[in-house]
Amino acid sequence: MKKLDITNRTRVKRLPKRASYDSDVIYNILDETFICQVGFKINNHVYIIPTAFGRKNELVYIHGSKNNRMLKSFETGEDICISVTLVDGIVLAKSAFHHSINYRSVILFGKPNKIVSNEEKNKALEIIMDHIIPGRWGDTRKPNAKELKATSVFSIQINEASAKIRTGPPNDDKEDIDLNIWTGVIPTKIIAEEPIKNVNLIDNIPLPGYLKQYVRK
Amino acid sequence: MKKLDITNRTRVKRLPKRASYDSDVIYNILDETFICQVGFKINNHVYIIPTAFGRKNELVYIHGSKNNRMLKSFETGEDICISVTLVDGIVLAKSAFHHSINYRSVILFGKPNKIVSNEEKNKALEIIMDHIIPGRWGDTRKPNAKELKATSVFSIQINEASAKIRTGPPNDDKEDIDLNIWTGVIPTKIIAEEPIKNVNLIDNIPLPGYLKQYVRK
Repeated sequence: MKKLDITNRTRVKRLPKRASYDSDVIYNILDETFICQVGFKINNHVYIIPTAFGRKNELVYIHGSKNNRMLKSFETGEDICISVTLVDGIVLAKSAFHHSINYRSVILFGKPNKIVSNEEKNKALEIIMDHIIPGRWGDTRKPNAKELKATSVFSIQINEASAKIRTGPPNDDKEDIDLNIWTGVIPTKIIAEEPIKNVNLIDNIPLPGYLKQYVRK
Repeated sequence: MKKLDITNRTRVKRLPKRASYDSDVIYNILDETFICQVGFKINNHVYIIPTAFGRKNELVYIHGSKNNRMLKSFETGEDICISVTLVDGIVLAKSAFHHSINYRSVILFGKPNKIVSNEEKNKALEIIMDHIIPGRWGDTRKPNAKELKATSVFSIQINEASAKIRTGPPNDDKEDIDLNIWTGVIPTKIIAEEPIKNVNLIDNIPLPGYLKQYVRK
């Protein structure tokens, strides 16, 4: 585990005891999902676009059409911000004030690095797909030269980042504890259901093993 | 249903057939969740912070500590960007290139309006809580003067916004259709499980009806 340097941008100022700057904590949160929110500027306006991502070692990878407005904006060389949030529950307290959310979140700042060679692009696309569905890449028809040309791929280093985590029951004020109000947590999570075969195709291809294992309830 | 004016910021340029500018479509997506991502600038750096929100009519409400860096930045009067994303599935195609995600997303731009009076603050906090857990507000100990003073609340108009939606199976190239590769969709969704009572409290308060109805599987 590596402790990242804390910067003015990554320092958690509100409730700092919920913060972590440990790379393993940050990686684990990133690896639990595959959609991030990317913040960037065009003409000094702030935009956010959700996009799929992959992570391997200390790099996050994102990709899209070469005509994508967000990816084109990356070429200005300005830092972007990436946000990933997992919502684990709704925290119900006696007081409205102490209601909260249980969550694990990561905020990451960095300059996107454009991946240029086809070989490196292919590696990055494999990392993104393996992040989303381990085992799938080997089973697909790989990108051809035209598809690679139409795709922009960027990596961002995970070295200016922080995690923030809340867990557990509500923290009520002492004077509220005897109030006749139910308190606790409603757990929430993302599940993956049984894969649905493409009905547009009449074939007898069985569900691959790596997809059977994917279901998470 | 009202069709919002399309601006340069909200116009969906990539795959415009997936776009909607209808207020009802946008409201329905916002009402399916309660966590948004807020993009803003401090010292010209882009930040994203996830936060809970509520929606009523054409307004989104967010709140937090009056010392919150994000909420303090709103007082500069600059536009912010709010992003909400629901992930409905992973789309598996024959080619790596045509893999995709099924989703419903909203992007919203606007100037946050600070809510100042205690009466209006209380109304906004009720809207946020009712958005997250309908029925809960009436059951809680309401904010006192000190808590209201410690809380900043802002509203943002939903008039510069767009939705983007992908549904359905993969769209493969004709020449790939006979490849021996499983294709289809892995549906994903957020569920709410049975509420967990706060074990720190020894009381016999039964689970309220509005929480029994909350479970979504």
